[in-house]
Amino acid sequence: MRIYAFEHGDGKNKKLLGGKGAGLCEMTRLDLPVPLGFVITTEVCLEYYEHGKKLPLGLMDEVKRNILGIEKKTGKKFGGAENPLLVSVRSGAAMSMPGMMDTILNLGLNEATLKGVIEQTKNERFAWDSYRRFVQLFSEIAMGAQEESFSKKFAEIKGKYSAHLDTDLDAKALKEITEDFKKICKHETGKDFPDEPFEQLETAISAVFESWMGKRAVDYRKYNKITPEMANGTAVNIQTMVFGNMGNDSATGVAFTRDPSSGENIFFGEYLTNAQGEDVVAGIRTPKPIVEMENEFPETYKELCEVRKKLECHYKEVQDFEFTMEKGILWVLQTRNGKMTASSRLKTSIDMLNEALLTKKEAILRIDPAQIEQLLHKQIDPQANAKSVAKGLAASPGAATGKVVFSADEAEELGEKGEIIILVREETKPDDIHGFISAQGVLTSKGGKTSHAAVVARSMGKPCVSGCNAIKIDDRKKIFKVDDKIIKELETITIDGTSGEVFIGKVPLIEPEITEDFKQVLKWADEIRILEVRANADSPNDAKIARDFGAEGIGLCRTERMFNDVERLPIFQKMILSDSDEERKSAIEKLMPLQKKDFMEIFEVMNGLPVTIRLLDPPLHEFLPSIEQLMNDINELKERGENIKEKKNVLRKVKTLYEVNPMLGHRGVRLGITIPDLYDMQVYAIIEAACEVKKKNIDVKTEIMVPQVSISNELKFVKKRVDLIAHEVFKKHKQKIDYKFGTMMEVVRGCLTAEQLAEFAEFFSFGTNDLTQGTFSFSREDAENKFLPKYMEEVILKNNPFETLDIDGVGRLMQIAIKDGKKRRPDLKIGICGEHGGDPASVRFCSKIGLNYVSCSGYRVPVARLAAAQEVAQKQ
Amino acid sequence: MRIYAFEHGDGKNKKLLGGKGAGLCEMTRLDLPVPLGFVITTEVCLEYYEHGKKLPLGLMDEVKRNILGIEKKTGKKFGGAENPLLVSVRSGAAMSMPGMMDTILNLGLNEATLKGVIEQTKNERFAWDSYRRFVQLFSEIAMGAQEESFSKKFAEIKGKYSAHLDTDLDAKALKEITEDFKKICKHETGKDFPDEPFEQLETAISAVFESWMGKRAVDYRKYNKITPEMANGTAVNIQTMVFGNMGNDSATGVAFTRDPSSGENIFFGEYLTNAQGEDVVAGIRTPKPIVEMENEFPETYKELCEVRKKLECHYKEVQDFEFTMEKGILWVLQTRNGKMTASSRLKTSIDMLNEALLTKKEAILRIDPAQIEQLLHKQIDPQANAKSVAKGLAASPGAATGKVVFSADEAEELGEKGEIIILVREETKPDDIHGFISAQGVLTSKGGKTSHAAVVARSMGKPCVSGCNAIKIDDRKKIFKVDDKIIKELETITIDGTSGEVFIGKVPLIEPEITEDFKQVLKWADEIRILEVRANADSPNDAKIARDFGAEGIGLCRTERMFNDVERLPIFQKMILSDSDEERKSAIEKLMPLQKKDFMEIFEVMNGLPVTIRLLDPPLHEFLPSIEQLMNDINELKERGENIKEKKNVLRKVKTLYEVNPMLGHRGVRLGITIPDLYDMQVYAIIEAACEVKKKNIDVKTEIMVPQVSISNELKFVKKRVDLIAHEVFKKHKQKIDYKFGTMMEVVRGCLTAEQLAEFAEFFSFGTNDLTQGTFSFSREDAENKFLPKYMEEVILKNNPFETLDIDGVGRLMQIAIKDGKKRRPDLKIGICGEHGGDPASVRFCSKIGLNYVSCSGYRVPVARLAAAQEVAQKQ
Repeated sequence: MRIYAFEHGDGKNKKLLGGKGAGLCEMTRLDLPVPLGFVITTEVCLEYYEHGKKLPLGLMDEVKRNILGIEKKTGKKFGGAENPLLVSVRSGAAMSMPGMMDTILNLGLNEATLKGVIEQTKNERFAWDSYRRFVQLFSEIAMGAQEESFSKKFAEIKGKYSAHLDTDLDAKALKEITEDFKKICKHETGKDFPDEPFEQLETAISAVFESWMGKRAVDYRKYNKITPEMANGTAVNIQTMVFGNMGNDSATGVAFTRDPSSGENIFFGEYLTNAQGEDVVAGIRTPKPIVEMENEFPETYKELCEVRKKLECHYKEVQDFEFTMEKGILWVLQTRNGKMTASSRLKTSIDMLNEALLTKKEAILRIDPAQIEQLLHKQIDPQANAKSVAKGLAASPGAATGKVVFSADEAEELGEKGEIIILVREETKPDDIHGFISAQGVLTSKGGKTSHAAVVARSMGKPCVSGCNAIKIDDRKKIFKVDDKIIKELETITIDGTSGEVFIGKVPLIEPEITEDFKQVLKWADEIRILEVRANADSPNDAKIARDFGAEGIGLCRTERMFNDVERLPIFQKMILSDSDEERKSAIEKLMPLQKKDFMEIFEVMNGLPVTIRLLDPPLHEFLPSIEQLMNDINELKERGENIKEKKNVLRKVKTLYEVNPMLGHRGVRLGITIPDLYDMQVYAIIEAACEVKKKNIDVKTEIMVPQVSISNELKFVKKRVDLIAHEVFKKHKQKIDYKFGTMMEVVRGCLTAEQLAEFAEFFSFGTNDLTQGTFSFSREDAENKFLPKYMEEVILKNNPFETLDIDGVGRLMQIAIKDGKKRRPDLKIGICGEHGGDPASVRFCSKIGLNYVSCSGYRVPVARLAAAQEVAQKQ
Repeated sequence: MRIYAFEHGDGKNKKLLGGKGAGLCEMTRLDLPVPLGFVITTEVCLEYYEHGKKLPLGLMDEVKRNILGIEKKTGKKFGGAENPLLVSVRSGAAMSMPGMMDTILNLGLNEATLKGVIEQTKNERFAWDSYRRFVQLFSEIAMGAQEESFSKKFAEIKGKYSAHLDTDLDAKALKEITEDFKKICKHETGKDFPDEPFEQLETAISAVFESWMGKRAVDYRKYNKITPEMANGTAVNIQTMVFGNMGNDSATGVAFTRDPSSGENIFFGEYLTNAQGEDVVAGIRTPKPIVEMENEFPETYKELCEVRKKLECHYKEVQDFEFTMEKGILWVLQTRNGKMTASSRLKTSIDMLNEALLTKKEAILRIDPAQIEQLLHKQIDPQANAKSVAKGLAASPGAATGKVVFSADEAEELGEKGEIIILVREETKPDDIHGFISAQGVLTSKGGKTSHAAVVARSMGKPCVSGCNAIKIDDRKKIFKVDDKIIKELETITIDGTSGEVFIGKVPLIEPEITEDFKQVLKWADEIRILEVRANADSPNDAKIARDFGAEGIGLCRTERMFNDVERLPIFQKMILSDSDEERKSAIEKLMPLQKKDFMEIFEVMNGLPVTIRLLDPPLHEFLPSIEQLMNDINELKERGENIKEKKNVLRKVKTLYEVNPMLGHRGVRLGITIPDLYDMQVYAIIEAACEVKKKNIDVKTEIMVPQVSISNELKFVKKRVDLIAHEVFKKHKQKIDYKFGTMMEVVRGCLTAEQLAEFAEFFSFGTNDLTQGTFSFSREDAENKFLPKYMEEVILKNNPFETLDIDGVGRLMQIAIKDGKKRRPDLKIGICGEHGGDPASVRFCSKIGLNYVSCSGYRVPVARLAAAQEVAQKQ
């Protein structure tokens, strides 16, 4: 079937009928007052392109049969002079898609049918105005004429009749304009303006199909990653015209079944008496609130309330619908799901559940976890309509306003004075950490979403825009440039880490809130979900935040973060730079009590919940300055005639540690094996901390995790030492604690040899950041800066695999590892602690493949809780 | 069973009986004259350690029963004064393992049994000499006394009796020494020297077991990667002593069933009349060639020839055996497979096949492919006994002698003058390529086995030692230091790329040869193998060499190598540095004819055989100088007051291209997608070259291969352009050629999504170098320099996975890809072109899992041909 009359189309089949068409069919079947019409399917659009942009043979015959059907039911006649049938023609794909053809109204008008309209409306001016609009719109949209010539002509005639406003023109003038417009059409397109209604219709249908491959539509699909599976071709909706401008017993309006911004269960909308849809848009007259209809048109209002109820009951979703009243008769012209704010979505879910409109599962499933994440961070006020000056990567969500500073030291200094600041740097390093603490947000001109700045900001829940190439920083002058603007130190900027945008000056922000509604929905989610949700937390403070957000444990505590502390970094650097074993051991020993203290505090905060601690992961050179920086420092010292010996020494060491591909280098368990003292110290600190807090009646559940494991013998090596140290500490403290030993699964080979690893590991925790890098052979930073944008543009990848788990590659590896690991150890506990642990789609996948837990940034714990519940709700 | 008498042991079970014990059992069963004895199994050794280093209860009772058995058969008595039974005690694990306990001879001697010996030998001096040797050896080996005290005492007594030589001492003096030795034993070990023969025996057995975990043995196993599966515990062999020094009707000797150095089928060996084994080793008397026995002891010689024949017929391998004639009676004491040179192994295989001793498959299986690779390169003459001054990585096999030069330009200059040179550099870069061409070999102080120097040298078949940290190069002074030696420019050195060693001065070399024997064996291999063997070749010359070595096609032609040519690199660099699209396109166009010319020549050389051409792979910054180098250059120019603008510009661009992890960066197909012009140009050059040579009646079989593919859409993108270009070129030339389109499988995700890839790829070629890096998350260079040595030492890995394919990880991925790829495309052609393609164990694995071909360096083609045949031979 190429064409479905509204009363025959399947309202569930958006793919075939487009969203608009499906809605019209569905409403027709619900016995709502929908003007008669029909849909030409999206498949015809594909046929159109297959046949070299030609309408399929016989299509117009079918169209004619359908028009005939309408004529029979309405008594109107398409092209008839007495009771003419006019139609609208609209595009409509499976997904809403700006850039396709606009609506053509009043199709069927010509000099003959115009008479019928005048007859019916008794309004010659209205009729001619409709006609001249139709001629212009049709010439432009369906025939490709330029808008300019029409507006020039229009102005000319207005001048001729000394008309100030369009409404000053009378029917005669409008008739003149219409005739001139037809000439323009001929001149511009080389074709006569078609008078024959079916010729008009055929041209309009082709034009809708043409617009599917128009540049704007194609770009839109590319940008929004709309694939053929999601929407392939557009449908064409042809519908009997109804008029809201037929007098004071006519009106037009839009309505929401509930208030879309508050979510309150009140009828919400606007209408204009004696007007057409475009008048509402034009904004010349101010529409009235929908409730006023109750007084003005009580009968119609009652009908409208029925429509509202029917739509919500049927769709189980807030609807956004359009209506027209023609001479007292109500018509519904379109319906779709209402767009809502995050908080209104929560509110409506709760209300609709209380109204027994939704089950708990349905109530949960209609909330977009990504949208509610907004509620957890400050946001730019959408009302502010602020214009950004640059866009970088959305590296850590939330917005912040503050004064620009260019160094961590200044940030700290000003921060202590109570200044609100944004740290702006080319890139950040571990020794900038005190700057992060003092700043409200961080902006960098280099580095991707895994750059130091991005990762640290996310873990602290501070907004960050990274890799914003458009800003050029001059550290010495203490300014940055963007285009031709210069921003000086202490000037105020605003950054939006959710969108990556940068604004000059202060932009109004909306405060985050975990409302009662939010809590209620999360409570339901917790009842349903199977997956445990833990948080990544590296400090006692992180742990506290995470617990407040409902984390059921810590899935990843990165011990190296503890070395970045201002007072600890020098000791750690000394350890790295030491030339003798003794020097190194002495530095390591100094670090032990510091780490122990952190662990004790974390254990106390997490009393009763598991805490997974990962042993040192990054390569040692990450804790030292770069070769380039040292070379620059040495040159500067030289120029100033100062001593360069010490710097040269550091440079020598940094060169020894230099790695071609640090991501694949001397790090993680590889360090644990080549410098066993380091892991020994960490393990000692963990076990001793646990023993000590246990004496304070804290319920400690510690899990020791080894990073970068690719070979079971690596685990064997470390486990042997861990067990020995534990034994020693237990003896010393006369106190035993339970601890688990496990491994990160972040190396491909680890997944492929999971059965061997499970001999030593009691738990697996997928480190999907690194695993994604290894699986794709993509270095995240390099990929996001260099080629991933092009990959997204060409739709070579649908999603950024560092944001949403790649199911075919990384997901398959995970499934192999789960299956094989459980073969060796059926009670193996398996989780994920990569950043995907906070991405809703990825969380759902983790729940589906049977993981025990996800662990994500504390701020994303609520998102993960909801997503985990959705996966369960979905499959039942 | 803990103990097997030689007549009962299973001579095939080396694991249980050790190599020596199994040989003795087997020979006993073959009715060869083996002195009676028995083996204590390796399992007893494990029991010994499980029971805290104690012999299992009842073991000595079993030993006694076995001794009793020997006594019954020989009429001798262990500890008897009349016809005393003396035994030897020897260790023997499943694999030969230096560092374990030496042989103890004459065990059972004490003052009582000594009388019996004197009685039998009528030689008091001999008896006492044997006794004092036994006391010393037993004290040292079995009881842990220090050698020093014994030799001091021995010298003291010699002084006392004014004896110059040991032989000047008479029986009396030797008796005195023996008694003093016993005192030393008591003094050193705190224990009396045991007189009781069974106490001696028990102590000796324990000592053998102790030696299994001795430092030297443990180190040896670690170093040679001998795992418990290969050898677990040592056996103890206890055997009746026989004496070759009982007069002129006695003798001792060693023999090979064939000449081990030439492989000729002649009886080879030496003997000494009236001597013990250790006399042969001591070298005081010159042994006689074995053939002389025919005159001296014709009967025994005849017997010996029988032994020779029996051993070879049985073992189907050249045997290296020991014998003793005691009073005219022949005894065989040990046999093992003979160690042979590569050429003698080839010769014996051919001879033994002709003698119908071996089948063709057996003849092939006994040749070690790694060993015959020696024949393809110059080698250091082992007779030269040269001592190396430093050891780096064995980066490209073969040895070379030449004069040291420190720059590629000088290498070229001197090379043109006919000088024989070795290029010595910290590391090499693409613009050193002309230096490689002129040099005999390359020595670098930095970089691993995949450094530029190593890879280029291998592909050229030139010796290379890389990463030789011990040498310190001073480019300005034109010297390098190693320890305290200084080597100046133009001094002569020798490098051995097979071992990684560096020698000062000229060392005699042996020339490579592909002998007739070698050709014959390869011919057999070709008859048997299923796997096709191709070569990696980047130039017409490489291709020619490969074809001469029997390559059946080119499996990998790296197009980027062509850009490294002196005249091309500047154009390529210009392309990279260009600021506008036009500049870039113009540079690309200049490269096209150059690439085409190369392709045409390669197609001509490979007439009739397939040529797989890989599109550009490395990241662009590899073709430019490093940031560090540019910064140094700029500083130098500044100091000299010269213009730095141009260098600064290059630095700016290099910084833009800079990648954190270039291995995982903007390279391969990612470049092909972001800069499509580049791939277009290469494809154009390939197809046009093919069309042009086809007109010359050359049979072209070209295969276009895309590197670094991880997503099927990448292939889709490139394939579309390839097909379009081909279509265009065909039209232009009015000529069609067949070409195949395929993909490297070098990214993990590629393997995991092979089914999707096979939609577009007609062939897969595993790039196991990169695949290994991705699978392990090991950057080869970083791993080999930083932690892999420790991993090998701790036996965390048995093999370097970059040399021998990792079956559990990489191999599993390959099997997944093969299975899934063939699901989508059953006639998919699959090969491997990583360096593993030339490693025998890896080639066998490739043959086993059903690959169609391997492709390796031209010089390794013969090795791969043989290894491929062995896999087939093995499984039948």
